[in-house]
Amino acid sequence: MNKSLLALAALSLSVPAHADRADLALESDTIAWDFVEGITTEVGPRMPGTEQEARGRVWAMQWLRANGFANVADEPFDMPTWVRGVETAEVTAPFAQPMAITALSTTTSTGPEGLEAEVVYFPTYADLQAAEEGSLAGKIAFVSHDMRRAQDGSHYGFAGPARWMAPSLAASKGAMATVIRSVGTDSHRVPHTGTTTFAEGVKPTPAGALSNPDADTLERMFARAEGQPIRMKLVMTPRDLGMTRSGNVVGEITGRDPSLPPVLLACHLDSWDLGTGAIDDGAGCGIIAAAAKHVAAQGQPLRTIRVLFAGAEETGLWGSKAYSEAHLDEPIYVGLESDFGADRIWRFETNFTASDSALYAELAASVARFGVAPTRIAATGGADLNLVRDQKGPLIDLQQDGTRYFDLHHTADDTLDKIDPVQLRQNVAVWTAVVGVLANRAEPIVLSSGN
Amino acid sequence: MNKSLLALAALSLSVPAHADRADLALESDTIAWDFVEGITTEVGPRMPGTEQEARGRVWAMQWLRANGFANVADEPFDMPTWVRGVETAEVTAPFAQPMAITALSTTTSTGPEGLEAEVVYFPTYADLQAAEEGSLAGKIAFVSHDMRRAQDGSHYGFAGPARWMAPSLAASKGAMATVIRSVGTDSHRVPHTGTTTFAEGVKPTPAGALSNPDADTLERMFARAEGQPIRMKLVMTPRDLGMTRSGNVVGEITGRDPSLPPVLLACHLDSWDLGTGAIDDGAGCGIIAAAAKHVAAQGQPLRTIRVLFAGAEETGLWGSKAYSEAHLDEPIYVGLESDFGADRIWRFETNFTASDSALYAELAASVARFGVAPTRIAATGGADLNLVRDQKGPLIDLQQDGTRYFDLHHTADDTLDKIDPVQLRQNVAVWTAVVGVLANRAEPIVLSSGN
Repeated sequence: MNKSLLALAALSLSVPAHADRADLALESDTIAWDFVEGITTEVGPRMPGTEQEARGRVWAMQWLRANGFANVADEPFDMPTWVRGVETAEVTAPFAQPMAITALSTTTSTGPEGLEAEVVYFPTYADLQAAEEGSLAGKIAFVSHDMRRAQDGSHYGFAGPARWMAPSLAASKGAMATVIRSVGTDSHRVPHTGTTTFAEGVKPTPAGALSNPDADTLERMFARAEGQPIRMKLVMTPRDLGMTRSGNVVGEITGRDPSLPPVLLACHLDSWDLGTGAIDDGAGCGIIAAAAKHVAAQGQPLRTIRVLFAGAEETGLWGSKAYSEAHLDEPIYVGLESDFGADRIWRFETNFTASDSALYAELAASVARFGVAPTRIAATGGADLNLVRDQKGPLIDLQQDGTRYFDLHHTADDTLDKIDPVQLRQNVAVWTAVVGVLANRAEPIVLSSGN
Repeated sequence: MNKSLLALAALSLSVPAHADRADLALESDTIAWDFVEGITTEVGPRMPGTEQEARGRVWAMQWLRANGFANVADEPFDMPTWVRGVETAEVTAPFAQPMAITALSTTTSTGPEGLEAEVVYFPTYADLQAAEEGSLAGKIAFVSHDMRRAQDGSHYGFAGPARWMAPSLAASKGAMATVIRSVGTDSHRVPHTGTTTFAEGVKPTPAGALSNPDADTLERMFARAEGQPIRMKLVMTPRDLGMTRSGNVVGEITGRDPSLPPVLLACHLDSWDLGTGAIDDGAGCGIIAAAAKHVAAQGQPLRTIRVLFAGAEETGLWGSKAYSEAHLDEPIYVGLESDFGADRIWRFETNFTASDSALYAELAASVARFGVAPTRIAATGGADLNLVRDQKGPLIDLQQDGTRYFDLHHTADDTLDKIDPVQLRQNVAVWTAVVGVLANRAEPIVLSSGN
């Protein structure tokens, strides 16, 4: 530990202002749970651009108003919408059996009759990269690149290319379809969906993710087939609906001085269709709204606190982009996002750690008693903070424990029962402490000139 | 602990005969894994009465012959076959969202258009019992009776009636369909299938099990609906195929004295269609076959060891019944079954604990070093031991740890990755020790006159 971190550790021992309400949140917050329990029960899945997402916005606006937020609004935008159809997979030879699969957006349909072809096995994305051009003509590529647990979620970056890029790469080498091992750390028959992107000039194909147990089985088939070709039949019939309407829901706790730039707290309201959007990201919206309410409860803050429940994050950050376009000339004081589940916050990062060390130290002190450690890593902000990034403004990342996040991420298993109410309250406590400091601070945040 | 159990404990300290091979199995058995890995990979689901089950028999016979078993045969029988169709459920009002459901055998079809009706909530089976006659006319009954973990699996008996009997009871009170909370202890979106029985005179209806997270959501809907009716649409299209062919696969390690009654080791080869039949019951067949081979490897046993891989257990113990009918006049020395997953054996029971205490003590001593404790509970034998029960013969139950068994039981999640190879080997070791004693014992087993 270097000297400045030791100094921070010493600072942490003094109890900061606004402690009472954060401590209370830790003990007894019910607001975050009420939000996530309510939206998962009364709305359920909220697929971007669909009527279900629109129902989610109506529900969320009603909830914000009932919870005392001002200036509640739905700021509409249009975005390209993809919806799931039928999806089945089966190995047809030599070891016929069905497999659990889910289509990736924005892949194409096999047609209702499906397609059947020989499968070519690539243990990793690098193996697919090494395949010769044209070698996959008329074949289905199987990329089994696997993901491991990491507290900071960093293996998403390591395993993610199998989903983000393999279908395009396989298509460019002639594949008629791609199946990947789910980008996920569980062992359940619930495949992980998500987006994939076809490179310019590459014709999109059908592509889906097998559950991890199914990918294991398919690997074992290759080990047992002794060179016999393994054939698979895929039926996946997703559809593009063209441009449809989504929207960003906003609400505010108005500050004593509305001329000061607001504190922006972000999450996303949409979810994948397979689950009910509990950890991704109903919990995040509940956490930020609960924190805003707790801060308001200890006296009207100096600055306005704005919550942004972004729309259509999952299929391309459409809400984040639309919000930035619409509000680029309205300065934001600082941006924070909650979008990594509901497990405890263990670390925090800013992009002003060196340039505004006084504020950094004050924040570190405010969260130390909740078990949150400072780091030197630079915050980059979450997906729905495009506005603040585009403004080159201050960012804080309150990092949640992601050890089990990718067990559930983008699956049917993203449901309320996966949220631990005790850890959810710890999130609210940390956010309450941090937002309490920020919303009552008059001074601008000093960023280094590099920002 | 009473005196006789203390005496047993003392006996356990002496190392019994046939120890070497059991110890070797504990360290290094690969036979059981080879069986269950092979059948789940090369065959997969083996639904009773279907072509997939028939493929399983062909595969198993080939495996038995390749592994040195004699008298390998498929003993055919006919049984009524039910197969799954489409299955979807959705709440349509007031909180529209899809739910994960699976049909129970041998329920009827809703037709492809499905049915939609108001849902009536019963927290437990007792609440359904208390409902007035005729009160469910035109309604869907929802029975949310929940199951808890138990090492000995005994809560299956406590929670099971919700599946076994609720659809019939609800139908008798007018319900057009029934949905139950899955009889299972997990929290994943993988509903638990199984059989249900309609009482004589009750017209069968559609009936399915919701996954536990979906049952949770439906309960929360009732808490939030403030008296508004909750409506659900069900589409489930299973079919009865009438009588089709199944079969029992048998194989033998022949003994030095074929005139002596054989030791019968049972499991079942069929599985539900949703998973791949790894813990239920590929593992069981692997364990008993591995034990038979290990015993044979230490010298030809006195008695023949017969393995029975029963067919069509899941939908009504058809194989067990057929086997008993066909072989009732052929005495069996003792019967044992493995059909409770692949986790470690922790306890054992016989139906001759008092009447043949010498053998009981010898068996107790043979397994003590593997962490298996004696009990006074009377063995009743597994589902596929009808023959031995019908003969009123000796039974031994080697009880596996069932703590997590009902997380997986009858779900899509019954796949190979759920088997712990270390615990699987402990099973083989215990079976090797016990079968080694039994197959080399000349004396008849003394049963009390009550048997």
